[in-house]
Amino acid sequence: MGKKFNVSRTAVWKHVNELRRIGYEIDSSPRIGYSFVKSPDLVIPAEIALGLNTSIMGRRILYREEVTSTQDEAGDAARKGAEEGVVVISERQTRGRGRKGRLWASPPREGVYFSTILRPNLRPTQIIQIPLIAGVAVCKAIRRVTPLEPRIKWPNDITIGGKKVGGILAEMSSDMDRVNHIVLGIGVNVNTECSLLPEPTRGIATSLAEKCGEYVSRVRLVQCLLAEFDALYRTFLVSGFDMLREEWKALDSTVGSWVKVIDGNEEMKGKALDIDGEGFLLVRKENGDVKRIISGDVSLIGRDN
Amino acid sequence: MGKKFNVSRTAVWKHVNELRRIGYEIDSSPRIGYSFVKSPDLVIPAEIALGLNTSIMGRRILYREEVTSTQDEAGDAARKGAEEGVVVISERQTRGRGRKGRLWASPPREGVYFSTILRPNLRPTQIIQIPLIAGVAVCKAIRRVTPLEPRIKWPNDITIGGKKVGGILAEMSSDMDRVNHIVLGIGVNVNTECSLLPEPTRGIATSLAEKCGEYVSRVRLVQCLLAEFDALYRTFLVSGFDMLREEWKALDSTVGSWVKVIDGNEEMKGKALDIDGEGFLLVRKENGDVKRIISGDVSLIGRDN
Repeated sequence: MGKKFNVSRTAVWKHVNELRRIGYEIDSSPRIGYSFVKSPDLVIPAEIALGLNTSIMGRRILYREEVTSTQDEAGDAARKGAEEGVVVISERQTRGRGRKGRLWASPPREGVYFSTILRPNLRPTQIIQIPLIAGVAVCKAIRRVTPLEPRIKWPNDITIGGKKVGGILAEMSSDMDRVNHIVLGIGVNVNTECSLLPEPTRGIATSLAEKCGEYVSRVRLVQCLLAEFDALYRTFLVSGFDMLREEWKALDSTVGSWVKVIDGNEEMKGKALDIDGEGFLLVRKENGDVKRIISGDVSLIGRDN
Repeated sequence: MGKKFNVSRTAVWKHVNELRRIGYEIDSSPRIGYSFVKSPDLVIPAEIALGLNTSIMGRRILYREEVTSTQDEAGDAARKGAEEGVVVISERQTRGRGRKGRLWASPPREGVYFSTILRPNLRPTQIIQIPLIAGVAVCKAIRRVTPLEPRIKWPNDITIGGKKVGGILAEMSSDMDRVNHIVLGIGVNVNTECSLLPEPTRGIATSLAEKCGEYVSRVRLVQCLLAEFDALYRTFLVSGFDMLREEWKALDSTVGSWVKVIDGNEEMKGKALDIDGEGFLLVRKENGDVKRIISGDVSLIGRDN
């Protein structure tokens, strides 16, 4: 191996040791040399970049073994001028978060936790469209790497069998009329042991491995996520959200369902009719009025038969 | 003086020298001691805090002789957890900015340039309301310290005789449904020599001193600005924007005027009818349609007589 790459025996030995330290299994036998046994499925840039075919997303990948939140790191990078498509990915978040500052449990090496920087020419009122198209990307990527059929719950949850398997968080820096940058975070429970998660997450969460009964490659999932989102985002930039609305609806579980919406102190029930061209949810209340939901927690409470 | 404050003669001398360095004129005579001649009207916290009677705004004032932009400094402080009402003020901005990244010329010691941190429980779509109420505060404060009658041009300009004397910039950090913090920046041309400003600012700007023909105390203006905004903001938190709408309209020059609105590549003309309960401008186009303007540059092109 030393000869082939023109490096010394000691240099090879050093690299092998570093790979072993981070979890690669590598055999060595005196005359034959080293042989690769098993990859630890770390989400390191070298692994992700292998065969990644995107034009914007992941053009630069910053890897951290541990972060408070990939959103914090990517936000810092964005403020220092990092370009669109830069990704921050980590094996573990100590303070992973979802909407409204809620905890997103992020045990080491079990899930996928990354954030990417976006710089679209958007008004602040359009930010809702970003998690919606990211939701489509997450569903499509999961469908590519597993036989599972995840669905979207408006605006930002990815569910399988009614339990949460993924979540999306879009945070923006903007002035009154123009978005400066968006940090889009995606978290997926991949090989997560959900019974070990803290409450209240434990009761409502599931993971891909739990649902399909086998280990799922995190590296492969990240590659598919970046590729799917890259394609959707480029369509969005050229043609706007309306072009992606039907695709979103095909993967959504909200529209057509009876829903309860809690927004601050207000609570309402009704039937989710559709999303409008801007991405907001239209709900017909029991008194017949149609309300445009721009924020709030939506629970699905049943469907007509 | 040493005796009265129980400090040594040398300590007094040191402080006096520091005050002289930053611009205070202080006479000294051998037997009598020091006598105060003239304050340089610096916007230092000790001066501003003197007699300031606010409950939120300016509870902590961070002073910098020079910054790139008070928005940047206040944003950093906000991300580190600085509380609502913290003010960053400076004598000079090297990259002062307005909406859409435009330059706000900020020559040293001539204008007032400060930013304050707000943490209201708002949706991102409501951010427009913050510059609107700040506009009311700026007009009221200027009316208190000068005989001038500035007016607001929707959404964020303060004008006198059609020329820009002040501007407001609200930048936010938020997720899809909740504002995390807002950094509200206010810039006023106080004793600014507008003929020396760079183009394109020069031709469209004026200053308080130019309009009223005499030097205006920046410290006094900042005190009034903080006091007026403090009162309005507290009303806003309790009662919402609708309570302040009439007060805004009493100081506004936009409603009732014919306007040209440029938003990206779109341009339209019409008559400004009103602002709605959320702060957006309603314009009746020539074909009779009423359009709700949520961003864009508005120019006033005349009034009916």
